[in-house]
Amino acid sequence: MFFDIKLDKKRPVYIQLKDYIKNMILRGMLTAGEKLPSTRELALMLKISRNTIIYTYDFLQDEGLIYIKRGRGAFVSDVKVDFQKKWDINWDERINNYAREAEKLDIIKSEIKWEKGMISFKSIAPDDKLFDVENFKKSFLNCISREGGKILNYGYAQGYKPLIEYLLKYMGNKGVDTSGKDILITNGFTEGFDLILSCLTNEGDKVICENPTHNTAIKIMRLHKLNITGIDMESTGINLNDLSQKLDRDKFKLSYFIPSYHNPTGIVMSPKKRTELYNILRKHNVPIVEDGFNEELRYLSDHVSPIAALSGSGNSVLYIGSFSKILFPGLRIGWILADKNLIGYLESAKRSRNIHTSFLDQAVFCDYLREGNFEKYIKKARKFYKDKYEVAIKLAEKYIIRSRIYGEGGLHIFVKLDNINSRKLLENCCSRGVIFTPGDIFYTDGGGKDTFRLGFPRVSNEDIEKGFKIIGEEIKKLY
Amino acid sequence: MFFDIKLDKKRPVYIQLKDYIKNMILRGMLTAGEKLPSTRELALMLKISRNTIIYTYDFLQDEGLIYIKRGRGAFVSDVKVDFQKKWDINWDERINNYAREAEKLDIIKSEIKWEKGMISFKSIAPDDKLFDVENFKKSFLNCISREGGKILNYGYAQGYKPLIEYLLKYMGNKGVDTSGKDILITNGFTEGFDLILSCLTNEGDKVICENPTHNTAIKIMRLHKLNITGIDMESTGINLNDLSQKLDRDKFKLSYFIPSYHNPTGIVMSPKKRTELYNILRKHNVPIVEDGFNEELRYLSDHVSPIAALSGSGNSVLYIGSFSKILFPGLRIGWILADKNLIGYLESAKRSRNIHTSFLDQAVFCDYLREGNFEKYIKKARKFYKDKYEVAIKLAEKYIIRSRIYGEGGLHIFVKLDNINSRKLLENCCSRGVIFTPGDIFYTDGGGKDTFRLGFPRVSNEDIEKGFKIIGEEIKKLY
Repeated sequence: MFFDIKLDKKRPVYIQLKDYIKNMILRGMLTAGEKLPSTRELALMLKISRNTIIYTYDFLQDEGLIYIKRGRGAFVSDVKVDFQKKWDINWDERINNYAREAEKLDIIKSEIKWEKGMISFKSIAPDDKLFDVENFKKSFLNCISREGGKILNYGYAQGYKPLIEYLLKYMGNKGVDTSGKDILITNGFTEGFDLILSCLTNEGDKVICENPTHNTAIKIMRLHKLNITGIDMESTGINLNDLSQKLDRDKFKLSYFIPSYHNPTGIVMSPKKRTELYNILRKHNVPIVEDGFNEELRYLSDHVSPIAALSGSGNSVLYIGSFSKILFPGLRIGWILADKNLIGYLESAKRSRNIHTSFLDQAVFCDYLREGNFEKYIKKARKFYKDKYEVAIKLAEKYIIRSRIYGEGGLHIFVKLDNINSRKLLENCCSRGVIFTPGDIFYTDGGGKDTFRLGFPRVSNEDIEKGFKIIGEEIKKLY
Repeated sequence: MFFDIKLDKKRPVYIQLKDYIKNMILRGMLTAGEKLPSTRELALMLKISRNTIIYTYDFLQDEGLIYIKRGRGAFVSDVKVDFQKKWDINWDERINNYAREAEKLDIIKSEIKWEKGMISFKSIAPDDKLFDVENFKKSFLNCISREGGKILNYGYAQGYKPLIEYLLKYMGNKGVDTSGKDILITNGFTEGFDLILSCLTNEGDKVICENPTHNTAIKIMRLHKLNITGIDMESTGINLNDLSQKLDRDKFKLSYFIPSYHNPTGIVMSPKKRTELYNILRKHNVPIVEDGFNEELRYLSDHVSPIAALSGSGNSVLYIGSFSKILFPGLRIGWILADKNLIGYLESAKRSRNIHTSFLDQAVFCDYLREGNFEKYIKKARKFYKDKYEVAIKLAEKYIIRSRIYGEGGLHIFVKLDNINSRKLLENCCSRGVIFTPGDIFYTDGGGKDTFRLGFPRVSNEDIEKGFKIIGEEIKKLY
């Protein structure tokens, strides 16, 4: 006893010793009533200070693991864990269809994993080397010195008030009329979209969206057992005739669109098209969920207002925003801007799911934004990704032959091959150390087997060239 | 134009000016093709540096709001928001039953609000003055200097690896055999419980739990449309005969218990009772969801291991842990310890809901724990809340007459009146500036109308006395 303990002097010693003795007691290696070595003996034996042992015993006593008899020493309490008969459950049989479906649709679990040395075009996560960590740190220190421990205690489901106020103004600056509307802070787009579907749809309801579209959105719609109708994409974005026809034919509960740097095609919907889209959906009274995805990154064309701006004081567009596609995704902060009354329901749903989004993160993020750091960052990020996009598109056109290439900017481009299976292509490229995202996962109808997405935010220009060259060569071989 | 702009010199001026001009353009107050004042003119007019104006125009150009003609100046782009016909939706009619139910069960929306000057026994949130903000700050700075921007980028659904490792060891130290098990990091208990029900239950399934029990748990079970069977509580905790009988009678999908400082009664289930409970549920093969609620705070009795420890290497107990009832609730960090295979499904469900819990928060929290700060904090917190509890229980026994008082420690006590309606009592107390939580919200069957909970972690000893005295006087009046 005590001979096999290995103490790591870099970690608090009393904790290691406490955990060691606790373990011995709970597992019955030290039995009830047994006397522990005196603090002096143990200090000598382990060559650590006697105060450390006293502190350790004090902790063990606090936790009810030992008791002290005055003048006689420390004794082990009767607290050994009394392991019961083994009882196993076959969880694979117990889980429900939702869990089964969630795992089946969890593409991370089935896709090709990145290995060291590979060039991966899978990710569209931003390059964290661009993050302005110094000012983030400053904002953290501001918050802590301003709010102290309060910011680490419970907050409100709707979100951190100053952040909500900031975002209402921010949306106002996009031309959105925020009167009669309110904001709910969510754990990113994903939670925002999930909450909206949870509160507005029922199993079997019909929803309409672009085809292809954001894979996470498809996953969430499927998990809500919705009936998804996809609308074809042209080179200028959604096909409005197709949209009109399908709206004439069926009754839809909701519509979902990504007007800026559409994922996965990278197409930006023109102001004219946004207006027409809005009016078509108004005619059919189908509310619009607008995904503000990467809208902040826009750099190629004239300013384009979100669809939410077109509706003026009307309440039929639900806007889901998130900086986190380009800035600090790890914080998981997004928002829903919608009718005040509807936000009330969404807030209650949010409270029943996770009480609220981290108040510390919200407060630090808010301070960071208010100091004007986002503007500085976005200026740098736009330039960086614009340059990257231009490199990527040029190289794609050079190497990726016999294909149509889509994308007007943002963090990815999209490729449509001429009748070649992109999963077959992926397999061949993978064996040469290059991976990307097969396009079929973005399709609502099993289509897109000859498409794929190339994300480039964190790939060096050299690797983009190397990777695209290999992809091009493998395409050639498949013809 | 530009005359009504009010610049706040404490905030970045170029942002205010940019937002002002952007607004004018989007709302059509500056029209397409209109020439903006030269940078020199505007600088003079607004009495700010010309560089600020140049920087502002640069931003506006970046966003496609203005264009520069070389040698001729800056002109407004054709980007005015073209407001469309107003389109309103009656959201109250559009929301589904889930949303309606979520709002109905959202007690925060119906309960009496705290007003200045009131003594409130409603909250069981910890006192943030105890939080060790200095060491938390240190941990934040450690993380940032070690991981840089990486910690602000996307992470993994299961959680931050070092935190998972820490918690596996932590659970091991509670006597839990973690072989074949794994951990999923969640946004607190609430998300953990919601995920478990999402993956394991279907509408109409029967679940069994203590009656009364944690109100949030009841809310989540109701939102999953489960059929809840409550088991009576005695002064030593759950009535095992009642439990056995009900298990004999019906088939249950899951069971849910709070063995330590049970919410709301404050009762600690004895080791003997835990063992019996475990074996009864094993006999009926009904998995156990154990809520580790405030287990860390235990200070009055001998050490008691969680039920999860009794199962040894068996996989039938799902343990939901959270320090956040006592430490940093605002971060929303909790965990599920369960069968590895089951954790895989829960992880996929989590990814489809919000991708992951804030990686920054997880990393900072992990560093904080590893430095041994939790042990130091808990020592202080145990002492603080023990003293508070002792004051509260003594004063309750003195003033709150003709009632049974429950609670062996923790952050609250529970009172059962002798046939007096606690909402009536609350009304009367409220008019004298004292509020508490009526007990009926904790009951699964509409019972508990003569009970209430008194939370005291953030009430001063003087206010506890003042408040309890008023409650006692109002009880007297009602007899």
